Amino acid sequence: MEDGADEHSRIAPWAPPRARRRLAWLESALGGLDADGVAKAAGEALAGHLRRFGEDGIVLYAGTNTMSARARAACEPALASRPSMGWPGEKFQTGLEELDVLEVLAPLQVAAVMGGGFAEVRLQSATLANLACYTALARPGDTVAVLPEAAGGHASHHAQGAAGVRGLRVVDLPYDAGGFDVDHAALPGFLRAHRPALVVVGASLMLFPHDVSRIRAACDEVGALLVYDASHVAGLIAGKRFQRPLDEGAHVVTMSTYKSFGGPPGSAVVTRDEEIARRVSEAAYPGLTANYDASRLAPLAVTAAELAEDGPAYADRCLANATALAAALAGEGFAVVAAERGWTASHHVAVDAAAFGGGDEAARRLAAGGVFLSGIGLPGQAPGEPMRGLRIGTQEVTRRGLGPDAMRGIAVLARRLLIDAEDPAKVLPDAVALRRP
Amino acid sequence: MEDGADEHSRIAPWAPPRARRRLAWLESALGGLDADGVAKAAGEALAGHLRRFGEDGIVLYAGTNTMSARARAACEPALASRPSMGWPGEKFQTGLEELDVLEVLAPLQVAAVMGGGFAEVRLQSATLANLACYTALARPGDTVAVLPEAAGGHASHHAQGAAGVRGLRVVDLPYDAGGFDVDHAALPGFLRAHRPALVVVGASLMLFPHDVSRIRAACDEVGALLVYDASHVAGLIAGKRFQRPLDEGAHVVTMSTYKSFGGPPGSAVVTRDEEIARRVSEAAYPGLTANYDASRLAPLAVTAAELAEDGPAYADRCLANATALAAALAGEGFAVVAAERGWTASHHVAVDAAAFGGGDEAARRLAAGGVFLSGIGLPGQAPGEPMRGLRIGTQEVTRRGLGPDAMRGIAVLARRLLIDAEDPAKVLPDAVALRRP
Repeated sequence: MEDGADEHSRIAPWAPPRARRRLAWLESALGGLDADGVAKAAGEALAGHLRRFGEDGIVLYAGTNTMSARARAACEPALASRPSMGWPGEKFQTGLEELDVLEVLAPLQVAAVMGGGFAEVRLQSATLANLACYTALARPGDTVAVLPEAAGGHASHHAQGAAGVRGLRVVDLPYDAGGFDVDHAALPGFLRAHRPALVVVGASLMLFPHDVSRIRAACDEVGALLVYDASHVAGLIAGKRFQRPLDEGAHVVTMSTYKSFGGPPGSAVVTRDEEIARRVSEAAYPGLTANYDASRLAPLAVTAAELAEDGPAYADRCLANATALAAALAGEGFAVVAAERGWTASHHVAVDAAAFGGGDEAARRLAAGGVFLSGIGLPGQAPGEPMRGLRIGTQEVTRRGLGPDAMRGIAVLARRLLIDAEDPAKVLPDAVALRRP
Repeated sequence: MEDGADEHSRIAPWAPPRARRRLAWLESALGGLDADGVAKAAGEALAGHLRRFGEDGIVLYAGTNTMSARARAACEPALASRPSMGWPGEKFQTGLEELDVLEVLAPLQVAAVMGGGFAEVRLQSATLANLACYTALARPGDTVAVLPEAAGGHASHHAQGAAGVRGLRVVDLPYDAGGFDVDHAALPGFLRAHRPALVVVGASLMLFPHDVSRIRAACDEVGALLVYDASHVAGLIAGKRFQRPLDEGAHVVTMSTYKSFGGPPGSAVVTRDEEIARRVSEAAYPGLTANYDASRLAPLAVTAAELAEDGPAYADRCLANATALAAALAGEGFAVVAAERGWTASHHVAVDAAAFGGGDEAARRLAAGGVFLSGIGLPGQAPGEPMRGLRIGTQEVTRRGLGPDAMRGIAVLARRLLIDAEDPAKVLPDAVALRRP
């Protein structure tokens, strides 16, 4: 399967060679199955994934999580195929009175815990939450100013993503790599030159808060609206252990509901501005949804209500684990990013992995030893250089009950796999044992 | 709650009065709950919905369904919060080898059963499948020609929906209301005048097939691509009991996976053209998704594989039920649409409900008696007239095991509720009894 032959994939003949080889192998293995065979193969894949991530693996991927037992119990797939179009009291469909309850519970709970007045919760992902903002608040040809990709600006902020779907002109904000924030000195002049309709901050690597009030002041000078993409830090915001962007001046917060927030897949758009809320609502429906998958609402409402009660303690544990892990990694000899600032003020930690062939290569080696995460670009890396960082998030191991002692154990596993270059097969049993003490 | 006072809704103060009253009542009833209270309220809502639709109700809503037991068993919510970005073999994340299996199984099965070569299955709804086509195959400012709303042209085809999100200019295709199809005589001149990039057919009410090959010929004259939105009829297409649009010349088929197809929520974009497939794939990722909710793939693969085996028999039962229901409704005195053409060639049936105050009013009355569906515009209705039709789909009652005898019983229930104007409370027990013989 990895012999370098230029194999043909039926699914994606245009994919790069390594992907084509993997696809062709799978297509061959999985072709010609009857329904029993498909159900069996799917069942084995599900069981294997649950074993790998749910039981054995140390999942440090920054953009994932596991739901609470109570939220999980509120997942009911039958709701997902019940379109529910329009407001309670005026729906296109009949018989959905019980969904009305969920359609009120979820936005009330999410708006409250995020410090907003309004929450649009129907969009199935934060990419679509961002697209709803672009649709509601900008027109094709308008400019949106976003964080550079090496500073964690998400694909949905950029031209190859949702901003391009809306036909926006995308410009990179001036960035201060050492400060992990927008270059505040250069920002006013930049905004005057580009006159963006929207400024988007909030990144895929969020070690430190933005100076939101200062960015908002610069936005006000040119009439730009400030969107804060809290996809990664929404759980910490809900727990009041990270900046509260709406308190500090953001017009809109967009967010994932399943990363640090810890709920079902999907997103929310939260604001205090009624006119923005109305426009986003119309972009969400009928703009971007007909059926929105109502099965997400019950676990989302439960998750938000739990964060309102237990969010501070959960966020404290995430932060303590992040600091413990960063310190331990530094102690094992890793180049942890932002050492001079105490490594992190969130649940994220970044390691410069240039010495290990870059973030992707290091992540693959860690995975072979039972530790799962991803590469990430680093703000200071050279243009065109492959992703140089390793990105770590502590939200899932925290929910799984691991604490600072386990973080020190994880740092040892990482040292053995990357610095000592030990055989991953020998490290893997120790990773599983650490996960299941 | 229905006293006509102009109440304030916190969630949507801009909503119309009837919705505001319902929202305000729910907000008052559901405010101030703690996490236990939210979990309890959500659990009661879920149980109530399952009782109403899963056990008691006669669900004739045309755009919904229930999954098979085997597909349902393949639903695993934990996968939904595992982003899986990029092709198998080249993912941004590590440790997702089991998701690779699902990412190959699902498109192989869907492409095969729909008669295509390629299937993009990551988009969470058919609205987004259509938006992916607009993104891949048109640019902001381009023209898209679609079916008029009164002919069932979906919101996602129109300017208030996904076509507007992409910034397209939308024009209504000339339509032959009596023929339930595009006005073929007027089409070539219309296309020459408007030069659309895309022509979209396939509607929310699909009593009869389109003459796809004739539409394609007209498209070819102006270089337009033909998109067939099979959201409603995908299950019949899979069962080979309705036109096969890719055989007849459509460049692309978009579809819902949970309506007549009977799978999980979501969509597919199917084509035989590699270049179109590549462009749609890039619009799907990174254009419109980062996390796409991988929990949909296993039940989707199982559903498609089941349709490959049992689809013809299932489609036959849907069609037989539709014809039996149409005949029985006509026999009870209803104005069933298209009587002169045998009412329907699909699982849909339409009734002219003008005599009962229109489709919405008639649907509300039927709901009070335990029969759930929706209104719909009718091709022949006057411009601006409220939705005149009742739309019926037989896919769910067919899956629940009801046959032609039950269809005749349903027609009697409808007559009692609408023509006889019997008290719905007296009809309801008979509806429940019919559902649970």
